Amino acid sequence: MINAAILGAGGLGKNMALLIEQKKEFNLVGICDSSGYLFNENGINGLTVKEAKEIASIPGSVPSSKSIIDLISSHKDKINTIFIALPNLPNEFIPNVTNEIIKTGFKGVLVDALKRTRAVEMIKDLDPELKKAGILYLTGCGATPGLLTAAASLAAQSFVEVLDVTITFGVGIANWDTYKATIREDIAHLEGFNPEIVSRMSDEEIIKELDKRNGVLELHNMEHADDVMLEFANVCSRDKVTVGGLVDTRNAKKPISTNVRITGRTFEGRISTHQFVLGDETTMAANVNGPVLGYMKSGLWLYDLGVRGVLTSADVMPHLMPAKENYLEIQEKQGYQKEKEPIGRKEFQKMMK
Amino acid sequence: MINAAILGAGGLGKNMALLIEQKKEFNLVGICDSSGYLFNENGINGLTVKEAKEIASIPGSVPSSKSIIDLISSHKDKINTIFIALPNLPNEFIPNVTNEIIKTGFKGVLVDALKRTRAVEMIKDLDPELKKAGILYLTGCGATPGLLTAAASLAAQSFVEVLDVTITFGVGIANWDTYKATIREDIAHLEGFNPEIVSRMSDEEIIKELDKRNGVLELHNMEHADDVMLEFANVCSRDKVTVGGLVDTRNAKKPISTNVRITGRTFEGRISTHQFVLGDETTMAANVNGPVLGYMKSGLWLYDLGVRGVLTSADVMPHLMPAKENYLEIQEKQGYQKEKEPIGRKEFQKMMK
Repeated sequence: MINAAILGAGGLGKNMALLIEQKKEFNLVGICDSSGYLFNENGINGLTVKEAKEIASIPGSVPSSKSIIDLISSHKDKINTIFIALPNLPNEFIPNVTNEIIKTGFKGVLVDALKRTRAVEMIKDLDPELKKAGILYLTGCGATPGLLTAAASLAAQSFVEVLDVTITFGVGIANWDTYKATIREDIAHLEGFNPEIVSRMSDEEIIKELDKRNGVLELHNMEHADDVMLEFANVCSRDKVTVGGLVDTRNAKKPISTNVRITGRTFEGRISTHQFVLGDETTMAANVNGPVLGYMKSGLWLYDLGVRGVLTSADVMPHLMPAKENYLEIQEKQGYQKEKEPIGRKEFQKMMK
Repeated sequence: MINAAILGAGGLGKNMALLIEQKKEFNLVGICDSSGYLFNENGINGLTVKEAKEIASIPGSVPSSKSIIDLISSHKDKINTIFIALPNLPNEFIPNVTNEIIKTGFKGVLVDALKRTRAVEMIKDLDPELKKAGILYLTGCGATPGLLTAAASLAAQSFVEVLDVTITFGVGIANWDTYKATIREDIAHLEGFNPEIVSRMSDEEIIKELDKRNGVLELHNMEHADDVMLEFANVCSRDKVTVGGLVDTRNAKKPISTNVRITGRTFEGRISTHQFVLGDETTMAANVNGPVLGYMKSGLWLYDLGVRGVLTSADVMPHLMPAKENYLEIQEKQGYQKEKEPIGRKEFQKMMK
C-alpha cells in the first residue's frame, strides 16, 4: 500500500480523498487545512473529509495553526507521497511551503497541480535543495498543466520541430464557491489583475467581477506553466505555447471542449496538427486528481530508482492503479449516481461499415 | 552523443536513418540488412542508406549472411541503443533475434515497433533473460502500438475504470512496395490469413490480394498488441481494446484520420470519451520513427537509473531531442520540400472571439 497525504481540503483536496477511496493500493493517511490536521495510519474515509466543514472538526484531528508542518513533521515516516492541493496565491506560496517541507526531513514524492509559469519556475529553482533533501518533486501534474501538457509532449514525437501548441480549456462549474481558489486563480489571469491583487479581494468583490462577466471568464494568452514545462522537455520554446479558455461559473456544462492542438513539421517536411480532446462529461476534479494520482504512482517508481529533484508532467508517464472491485458501491455511498455504459464498440463497428 | 544502430533497412529503417540525421544528440553508427552491415563511429549518412539498394553495396560495408549478430558482436561497445526495424514474420522472429542479441553481450536499450499481441507477449516473456543480460527492452514503440497506446494510457488517468479503447488507423501509401513488410503484416490480419501463410506468399500473390480489394485493406478486430500493453499498464483488460483501420495502398491520402478513443467512468460516476487524433499529413514513417527515437532517449535515461528487462510504450513517456539548427537544409538535401507554416495561433484566437 502507498500512503498518501493531501495538503489542503478545498475542492481539489476533498475530491482527491473521494478518488483515493475508490482505488486499490492507495491509502489516504493524512490531510490538513488551516484549522488543523488529521492523521490515521489505517486510512481516512473520503466521505468524512468531504462532509467536514474544516479538518479540525473531524474526531481525532489535531487543531494547529501550522498544520502542514505539524502533520509532516509528526508522521513523515508513514507518508510516501504528498499532494500539495493548496491554493497558490501569491506565486511564492507553494515554493515557500516546499522549503518548509524540506526542513521537516520528509523523504518521498511531492506532486502539485500548479498552474502559473512563474510558480513552476520557482519550484524548478528548488531542484538542488530537493535533491539534497532526498525528495522527488513532480510539478504541474493536474489537467493543464498536466494531462494536456503530457499529451502535447507525446504528440510532439511525430515532429522534428514543434511550431505551435495551443491549449484551449472549457470549464463548467454549477456553483463558483465549490472552487473558490481555482476561480480566484483564473481571475488573476484577467487583464488588470494578478495573484497579489486577487489575494486581497473579498468574496463579494470576486462575485462582483463574475457578475460583470455574466459568470463567464474568457481567458486569453494566460501565464500558464505548460510553456516552460514544454521548453524544459525539449518540445519547443515557451513562446510557441498559448493557453486560453472559457470558464462558466454558473453552468456545469462546459462552454467548449477542452483540447490541445500540437502543430509541427515532420522529418519529411510536412506540417500537420495532432489533437487531444477531453470528453465534456469529465470534470476538472476528474482531470486534475486522476493525473495527480497517476504521477504519484510513477513518481514513487522513479523515487525507488533513485530519481530526486524536480521533474514535470511532460517528462514522465503517469502510471495507473486499478479501482477496487466494489468501487461502484463506494461511488454510490459517496453520493454519485451510476451511468449506463455507452455502446462505444458497436458505434465504431457501424462507422467502419 | 547517443550512438544508435538500426537492424533492418526497409522502409522503416531507411526513414529512421533520414530522421536521425536531422536530430542533435543522436548519431547513427550501424545498420544492417540481409546482405551485410555497415558500421561507422563517425556517423552514417541518411541519404546514403536511403539510396542504397542493399547495405552491402555501400562502400565500407561488410557483407555477411548473419549481419545482425556480426554488427552487434563486433561493435557492441560503441552502440548505446538499437532499433529493431525488421519485419516480424513469423511471430517468433524478433523474439529469436532478441535471444541472439542477448548472446552477443550487448548492454543497452533495445526498441521495437512490434504490432502483434503474440509477438509482444513473447518479448515480455524474455524479461528475466533481458534483466540478467543487462538490457532494457522497450516494446511496441511505433504508432499503434506506440504513440496511440501511450495516449490511451495517459487519457485513462481521468477515469477510475476504462470501459473501452478503440483504435482506428488510416494509412495511405502511394506505392505498396515502399512498405512491403508492413503491408504483408496487415494482410496477415485479414480473415483467412496469418503470419505463416503470408511469409510463404510471393509478391505477385500479395499484389493479387490487393487487386481483389481495389488496393484498400479493411481491418477489423486486429490482433494488435495495444491490448496486452494496456493490460500490463493497468489501464484495462485486453478484451476492452479493439484495433481496426483502413489501409489504402494506392493513395498517399489517408482514407480516415488515425485516432484513439478512450471511454471510461470517472470517480464521480460519469461516462465520457477522450479522443486523440493524428494529423492526416503525418505519415506512418513520421508516427513510427519519431516515437521510436523518443523511446530510445527515455529508455537510455531509465537505463542509467538501473532499469532492466521489458517495458512497453504505455509505461514510459518518450523524451524529445531538439532538431539540428540547419534541419531544413538537411531535409532539402534529403529530397523533401519545405511547407509554409500555417496560421495556427491566429485561427485559434479568431475562434475564441
